[in-house]
Amino acid sequence: MITRRAFSFLSRRSVYAWRNQSNDARQRLDISGIYPPIATPFNEREEVDYQKLDHNLTKYAKFPFRGLVVQGSNGEYPYLCVEERVEVVRRVRQALPKHKLLMAGSGCESTRGTIQMSQRMADAGADCVLVVTPCFYRGRMDSQALINHYTKVADSCSVPVVLYSVPANTGIDLPMDAIIQLSQHPNIIGLKDSGGNISRIGLAVQKTRSQGFQVLAGSADFLMAAYAIGAVGGVCALANVLGLQVCELAQLCVSGRWDEARELQYRLIEPNAAVTRQFGVPALKQAMQWFGFEPGVCRWPLQPLCEADLQTVREKFSSNGWL
Amino acid sequence: MITRRAFSFLSRRSVYAWRNQSNDARQRLDISGIYPPIATPFNEREEVDYQKLDHNLTKYAKFPFRGLVVQGSNGEYPYLCVEERVEVVRRVRQALPKHKLLMAGSGCESTRGTIQMSQRMADAGADCVLVVTPCFYRGRMDSQALINHYTKVADSCSVPVVLYSVPANTGIDLPMDAIIQLSQHPNIIGLKDSGGNISRIGLAVQKTRSQGFQVLAGSADFLMAAYAIGAVGGVCALANVLGLQVCELAQLCVSGRWDEARELQYRLIEPNAAVTRQFGVPALKQAMQWFGFEPGVCRWPLQPLCEADLQTVREKFSSNGWL
Amino acid sequence: MITRRAFSFLSRRSVYAWRNQSNDARQRLDISGIYPPIATPFNEREEVDYQKLDHNLTKYAKFPFRGLVVQGSNGEYPYLCVEERVEVVRRVRQALPKHKLLMAGSGCESTRGTIQMSQRMADAGADCVLVVTPCFYRGRMDSQALINHYTKVADSCSVPVVLYSVPANTGIDLPMDAIIQLSQHPNIIGLKDSGGNISRIGLAVQKTRSQGFQVLAGSADFLMAAYAIGAVGGVCALANVLGLQVCELAQLCVSGRWDEARELQYRLIEPNAAVTRQFGVPALKQAMQWFGFEPGVCRWPLQPLCEADLQTVREKFSSNGWL
Amino acid sequence: MITRRAFSFLSRRSVYAWRNQSNDARQRLDISGIYPPIATPFNEREEVDYQKLDHNLTKYAKFPFRGLVVQGSNGEYPYLCVEERVEVVRRVRQALPKHKLLMAGSGCESTRGTIQMSQRMADAGADCVLVVTPCFYRGRMDSQALINHYTKVADSCSVPVVLYSVPANTGIDLPMDAIIQLSQHPNIIGLKDSGGNISRIGLAVQKTRSQGFQVLAGSADFLMAAYAIGAVGGVCALANVLGLQVCELAQLCVSGRWDEARELQYRLIEPNAAVTRQFGVPALKQAMQWFGFEPGVCRWPLQPLCEADLQTVREKFSSNGWL
Repeated sequence: MITRRAFSFLSRRSVYAWRNQSNDARQRLDISGIYPPIATPFNEREEVDYQKLDHNLTKYAKFPFRGLVVQGSNGEYPYLCVEERVEVVRRVRQALPKHKLLMAGSGCESTRGTIQMSQRMADAGADCVLVVTPCFYRGRMDSQALINHYTKVADSCSVPVVLYSVPANTGIDLPMDAIIQLSQHPNIIGLKDSGGNISRIGLAVQKTRSQGFQVLAGSADFLMAAYAIGAVGGVCALANVLGLQVCELAQLCVSGRWDEARELQYRLIEPNAAVTRQFGVPALKQAMQWFGFEPGVCRWPLQPLCEADLQTVREKFSSNGWL
Repeated sequence: MITRRAFSFLSRRSVYAWRNQSNDARQRLDISGIYPPIATPFNEREEVDYQKLDHNLTKYAKFPFRGLVVQGSNGEYPYLCVEERVEVVRRVRQALPKHKLLMAGSGCESTRGTIQMSQRMADAGADCVLVVTPCFYRGRMDSQALINHYTKVADSCSVPVVLYSVPANTGIDLPMDAIIQLSQHPNIIGLKDSGGNISRIGLAVQKTRSQGFQVLAGSADFLMAAYAIGAVGGVCALANVLGLQVCELAQLCVSGRWDEARELQYRLIEPNAAVTRQFGVPALKQAMQWFGFEPGVCRWPLQPLCEADLQTVREKFSSNGWL
Repeated sequence: MITRRAFSFLSRRSVYAWRNQSNDARQRLDISGIYPPIATPFNEREEVDYQKLDHNLTKYAKFPFRGLVVQGSNGEYPYLCVEERVEVVRRVRQALPKHKLLMAGSGCESTRGTIQMSQRMADAGADCVLVVTPCFYRGRMDSQALINHYTKVADSCSVPVVLYSVPANTGIDLPMDAIIQLSQHPNIIGLKDSGGNISRIGLAVQKTRSQGFQVLAGSADFLMAAYAIGAVGGVCALANVLGLQVCELAQLCVSGRWDEARELQYRLIEPNAAVTRQFGVPALKQAMQWFGFEPGVCRWPLQPLCEADLQTVREKFSSNGWL
Repeated sequence: MITRRAFSFLSRRSVYAWRNQSNDARQRLDISGIYPPIATPFNEREEVDYQKLDHNLTKYAKFPFRGLVVQGSNGEYPYLCVEERVEVVRRVRQALPKHKLLMAGSGCESTRGTIQMSQRMADAGADCVLVVTPCFYRGRMDSQALINHYTKVADSCSVPVVLYSVPANTGIDLPMDAIIQLSQHPNIIGLKDSGGNISRIGLAVQKTRSQGFQVLAGSADFLMAAYAIGAVGGVCALANVLGLQVCELAQLCVSGRWDEARELQYRLIEPNAAVTRQFGVPALKQAMQWFGFEPGVCRWPLQPLCEADLQTVREKFSSNGWL
């Protein structure tokens, strides 16, 4: 298994252990389990508030998460400058127990930017990097362009790469043929799929499992269905708020207690939609506050919710028995 | 249970048994199970070919279907004139064993047209009607308009109504608040959801099951996930081709054999996509031919597949072990 | 010129005059000018109200329209049964002066349905037919399918065919290569483009003008721009309400008085949006009432506007000086 | 008029001349005319190639452009790091004659990032900044969020701000009510609209001209129509290739020679589509090479065109008489 700790006393070239492994022999980093894509707390001047971050990390440490995703879409990463992105990863690594994985979102629009960011995050302690599809020139981002992009990033990165498809933000659903081909790269170990198309998730599992490729659900509202069809975990915004419950749902799925899982899943759909698709990061941060976290404000142009929307979000939690 | 046979010797008003039932007491028609939305065979002059239809019905009779859907999207119903739509229902009813349900697609763009068509189909022997969302003026089809439409149709129809949401064809996803409100109508008993958004399906089940409302998956590629989250059956184009296999998948889900279900589900995703989303009715009819059915040609403007597309469709069946 | 009157005393085959014309020699029906796509009035029982229709036709007779479009998208044609569609055309023909063109919307989903409807409308007195793109199986409606569809319709129709692209309703923008190829058919004389993409309209003119093909703007809000780039007229819902003003705008464009045209165009954009894209046929019918027409109600599922929306529509007319 | 040269010897606060102007009295920077949104040349190692840039600037100096847009969508700005973005602006300013405007694309996802970038570009010599709509959290980018964003940027920026709406890249069309409200800000002087909806452009002109707000067409294929409806210029990718021709088209429009303009406009539609919507920046750079410019390669993940696509692009230029 490629581990984070190995990197500190090895030169970069030599750590690319995967280069020397045969396809059969290689052991991919096990990324199964639940991750909250943590929010980045800001103070009133919109600066990263590391004290609030530490507060939250302490709370998360009590949950049976597999690890944390730093700078997924809910981390407001497009609002952080390069140095902030790296520094947040460094701080989280310091606070995070060694046995917990740190998956760092290192995607940039350009391939060279992504390569640099990925390595800086690896150097800052990330166990693997989560690389979102570039999207500004979406008309040109066909399968071949994306295959080339990810291959180049994975070739040069000292930690494993996880593909990240989040069409609600990017307007791009990573094509299936690209996923299949990229799953054969020894340093590309999985996919976070936030699109939620369940037959697509099933197809991705079917077509890549022989490679040991791992599929993670990108949201809690289809987590049970994703497990049912072969996913091995989830990166779920809702786990920032209802971390225990999302972990429990995963545990019920893994142990085949589908009837209990279904009942729990029902109660997570509406709260999940409220803090993701419907009202976004401002709702997520508000809900975190209700549950004792310290998310701080959002950076502009993200605006706080109006009173009516806040009530709606609150109602989605309370009517399902969480508040 | 409201049965088709009751209608022949009762005046129309008196058969609306549901009108006199209390909400608690009423027993909804059980629509759980698998249905092929049957293709309408045409001969070379593009006339409905009832001989081919009978051939197919005879073959379907051997499968453990709950019943048949006549004039779902795969039935080319928008290409049939009013008389043809009714006549096809009448013919299917004649051939169909009494214990099999006939669900007839009676949706038209106007409410009055839908009311008339629904009753004509009920009179021709439909056990229930499947009513697609009107869509031409989609900018005006908000929740309230759709609630009004379905309520008026269900109020006047002597057989139960099943809602039908198929955004790929209509551009409209029946809104959740409309589904929830309509589920309380005593004569609206279920939903066929072809959109395939699995958390939406879960939410629909959660919010309507206290009413005895029944949700059917509208396609085979998310059938297992839909069962997992509480759906009770499926209307699956692929069941026109691989009827036994789709029924077996349903049976595995119902009996909680999820690991076997998953393996079978995998093998159905690609063939299903090929005969629906990817290549549509012309591919479905071609595949039916490979499996011994007599689908005939499509009505224009639907065109036969080119040779390359045919090869792709065939490959999706053969690579999954079906051909 | 192919004229309507010729058909009454000639057998159908012999009137297909265009079949015997060389491409160069043929004279296409001149369709330049302004047409209101008239609304179909319904009484309170939602029956076609021919008295109201006559009232409106009498008023329209005073405007310098080139003719009328019967059963464009604003005519609620998807809500009319076959007999009603033909009968409305017949009635309009009776009331319409001989020198005014009657362009009848004859599009159906199937090619055979469109052929039959087109000929019935020609027999009922239509000078040409306006054929909307079939759209239910939009995934299959590629250029070749649409070329085949329109070619077969035009081959068999005794009056000229006008192509009709209205993506807001159909989800399909008739592809440019199809337009170009179809423009070469001797019996396809023009295009009504309601998409409003002005460079597409320009390209259609550039690529088809050598054929004498005529492009009509499908809405009043881009009428001036369409004239500027080479369109020869417009089918404008707003002309149902502000008929004189739309005709005046066209006249200013034709005579090259662009500065005056621009000022008038500005004042039509908001009212036009209100009765089309924003609030649809219910708003159109309400506005017609304000201006002395008798539109009656809409057929369900189209619902009347709520009070707030009505105020918005009214304000769009009053703030631009029309009410 | 606010000029660039004023800033070098004035403290930042004092240069915000617009703050002390009454609305009536203020004179907005005149941005009418044609701008190429210049490409950023890269060498084979994908570094910014300033020699190639100088070569191109020398050629552009001979054309009657109003100025240059640096880091519009065609400048691959999302692929440049912060320092590169500023440095390219500084280099262009050095090479650009004083009387030519430099409009610099300073948009970032966050408001604070955009504020910083805008001021750095102003300090590097930009006469005004072009600020694209933030888009990653598009579900939250409603009118109010965008109004707040632009207001804060314009409040703090020492040079005027031009709004920039480019839905093909961002998935967001800056809402009309936001445009209207923002047009009243003394330091927001115009809009580059690349969406190309011509009635929207007309409405923007109608609603903002009393403020002296200026609308620029964002592409050459609707340039004539935009002028016809009141736009005062254009930022046109095609002007990188056919600079003289685009300027000539503008001149024909300004002088009211619409018939000549129309003929020239026709010949620009297809080449424009080829280097923008259809094949993007790789096609633009290829075409620049055909016409004697030195665009270098694109940064990855943008890929060079395949041979077949190259032929298509070339054909769009040659068939319209440009090659």
